Amino acid sequence: MKILEERIRREGQILSDTVLKVDSFLNHQVDTGLALQIGREFGRIFADEQITKVLTIEASGIQFAMAAGIALGVPFVYAKKKKAVTQAEEVYTAEVYSFTKRESYQVSISRRYLGPEDRVLIVDDFLATGAALVGLTDIVAESGAELAGVGCVIEKSFQEGRSLLEERGIRVHSLARIAAMSPGQVQFIDEESLVH
Amino acid sequence: MKILEERIRREGQILSDTVLKVDSFLNHQVDTGLALQIGREFGRIFADEQITKVLTIEASGIQFAMAAGIALGVPFVYAKKKKAVTQAEEVYTAEVYSFTKRESYQVSISRRYLGPEDRVLIVDDFLATGAALVGLTDIVAESGAELAGVGCVIEKSFQEGRSLLEERGIRVHSLARIAAMSPGQVQFIDEESLVH
Repeated sequence: MKILEERIRREGQILSDTVLKVDSFLNHQVDTGLALQIGREFGRIFADEQITKVLTIEASGIQFAMAAGIALGVPFVYAKKKKAVTQAEEVYTAEVYSFTKRESYQVSISRRYLGPEDRVLIVDDFLATGAALVGLTDIVAESGAELAGVGCVIEKSFQEGRSLLEERGIRVHSLARIAAMSPGQVQFIDEESLVH
Repeated sequence: MKILEERIRREGQILSDTVLKVDSFLNHQVDTGLALQIGREFGRIFADEQITKVLTIEASGIQFAMAAGIALGVPFVYAKKKKAVTQAEEVYTAEVYSFTKRESYQVSISRRYLGPEDRVLIVDDFLATGAALVGLTDIVAESGAELAGVGCVIEKSFQEGRSLLEERGIRVHSLARIAAMSPGQVQFIDEESLVH
């Protein structure tokens, strides 16, 4: 998605070879017009998939799940993050290891809002190690819902997230794929030149 | 907002005289069409206020800040919640006491995204004790931005949040105002019959 790549080049802060900050327009301050365009792009890519529900994780996935839900005309559900505790309610849970925080946390979704009748599109802001997204795909599998695919706004293609998901046979689409980066420079993979 | 009140009557789970769950359509699973309507209603109410930025707190305010930002054609910023720690970055912070969790946490916003040039609309899902919203108004004051008002989706009018904000001279609009509730029953304040 060219407009997204240009915005990353212009406003993204590359703090190291692995850390990219996009909090001026994607995940702290949010450009609502761009978020809607991102949602429409996910809507276009997954238009034929009969999606019934978009799924994401709080907090930074919410604006993109909302935009994708608007584009597809379906509700979205956001998984909640908690320290591992016993749940009073009936929930699906998955354990996720955070490499940045070096601790595990639990993501959970009420059983009421996901079931065998659903065809799910998972959406998130970043695909890097894939830990959180693999957790979400486990939850979808447990619920009996069908997973139509995963849509990410930015992919750090030099990390293992995509291959972890593809090994499970999951269709992955990222709107900006970063091949490599270093302070002051970011190199994108040209989607058009690739055959998946 | 009639459609919202009807939805609360139909789907809201009243767990006690003070606890209302609306997680089937507002803050776990989200009806994107209703969220957009809520945003348009905030847009209509604050249309003459020259809003430049919508402000909320992660996570459950995000979908409504997004919808209000779409309606007003402006970006939104969401404050991040953290245990009180020293911040590496330049941020505005406020201490908030959570009555449900019985602990304090810190909300923070990067100084880059709020300043004297802004006219701010604060949006959140619930107005109850007002603790989180008062924290946000403190941050707006510290930033030098002007606060145009506070828009909440659901107000528990039997709690002190509204009066805490109004004492500070803040314009408050809630789309559904609950006068009283008990399991199986919810009584709304009719906005039309009120003069503010």
